[in-house]
Amino acid sequence: VEYDGTSYHGWQLQKNVPTVQGSIEKVLGKILGAPTRVHGAGRTDAGVHAQGQVAHFLSNWARSLVELQRACNALLPPDISIAELTQAPDGFHARHSARAKRYVYTIRNAPLRSPLRRLYCLHVASRLDVSLMQEAAEHLLGSHDFAAFGSPTDGTPSTVREMWEARFESGEQGDTWHFVICGSGFLRYMVRSIVGTLLWTGTGKIRPEEFRLVLESRDRSRSGPTAPPHGLCLVSVEYGVGDATES
Amino acid sequence: VEYDGTSYHGWQLQKNVPTVQGSIEKVLGKILGAPTRVHGAGRTDAGVHAQGQVAHFLSNWARSLVELQRACNALLPPDISIAELTQAPDGFHARHSARAKRYVYTIRNAPLRSPLRRLYCLHVASRLDVSLMQEAAEHLLGSHDFAAFGSPTDGTPSTVREMWEARFESGEQGDTWHFVICGSGFLRYMVRSIVGTLLWTGTGKIRPEEFRLVLESRDRSRSGPTAPPHGLCLVSVEYGVGDATES
Repeated sequence: VEYDGTSYHGWQLQKNVPTVQGSIEKVLGKILGAPTRVHGAGRTDAGVHAQGQVAHFLSNWARSLVELQRACNALLPPDISIAELTQAPDGFHARHSARAKRYVYTIRNAPLRSPLRRLYCLHVASRLDVSLMQEAAEHLLGSHDFAAFGSPTDGTPSTVREMWEARFESGEQGDTWHFVICGSGFLRYMVRSIVGTLLWTGTGKIRPEEFRLVLESRDRSRSGPTAPPHGLCLVSVEYGVGDATES
Repeated sequence: VEYDGTSYHGWQLQKNVPTVQGSIEKVLGKILGAPTRVHGAGRTDAGVHAQGQVAHFLSNWARSLVELQRACNALLPPDISIAELTQAPDGFHARHSARAKRYVYTIRNAPLRSPLRRLYCLHVASRLDVSLMQEAAEHLLGSHDFAAFGSPTDGTPSTVREMWEARFESGEQGDTWHFVICGSGFLRYMVRSIVGTLLWTGTGKIRPEEFRLVLESRDRSRSGPTAPPHGLCLVSVEYGVGDATES
């Protein structure tokens, strides 16, 4: 599922406010003629975007999947689309079967704000030293207790996760940076809280070594502010045997 | 001036609807303490964006231009910004002094629509032969009567304009094309009407040679539909002696 999160109160169904899950369930309900529960891999927060969210649902649709996908995309609003629809293997669960998720947080580092780029990247006016941010980000690699950066979302109380990628890539435009992070799973607000703390490093407020100490502290009060949601995008979710990123 | 045209009824001031000119005049009026008329180089239509619109106004602001620019950007809405503010030479007029304008029309050619890219490019699901579109576009180069593609906007009834560039560039993403067109001036709806007709060429409805016949006909009823505004962006306006594109 691809979506522009700007107008939604996040992925997860809530009463009386628009959510991505709610919009998809409404459309599937109409097409399938029965209430249909949709389970997403990642519960993105209000304002967060997705290029490659994955979700599953049960149905006894008898016609082709191409027809079902087309019907969904015809009824879904312009800011949500089903990019791919396939039959899942038995026992598949979008969230429980996920082995890895990849997020990208996009930062535009330039003196002035840009109207045409305001919706999908965070504008930072102060000059950032991205090499220091990259140095700090490397401390995230491997298995750590990430309690300093978020709280568990699921039943499990563990705050340990494993990260395989955490790096800055320069964007197509010279003033833009993509922070790419890929790991076994993410706590609530984790990527945005990491980005907020990396921004401290980039502006010289803390050194990369101090970033490591924040991580090791497991103390939420020591991390930086949660970066705004609109810079964040859930890029992909990876599953099963044969995945390069399998844990 | 950079702006996201999505929420505006175009550049030009109109009663009771939001326009870009209206928003800037309101802000300047507040800062300068007097009603201030703003003259734009190009009157972009409703929904059209700009990266490099140019506008002038008269004022007796006594402090620095940096302060004025900062004050404007602080009061302007997030979808409009003053990217650069300088003192114009005597007799400068944003529209009358302009020697060239450059527009880019962005097309995304892919089977499915994309929520994250819907605001700034036209989605075309049918497969386009961009080499045919490029071949057709070359007929636009030079001086022509463009009456087939639009009507004059200004006092002058002439529909003759000169084009120096008209080419397709592939975008950063593999499925995206930028149609870049640079010329001495543009009739109302001209770029969008050209794009609508080029799309006829790209889908095989007419051959590049027939595109030339449409141009030569000077007959508005023979050109294609006006392409939607959201794919169009006024990229730059060029002035004066020494410009590469001076006529």
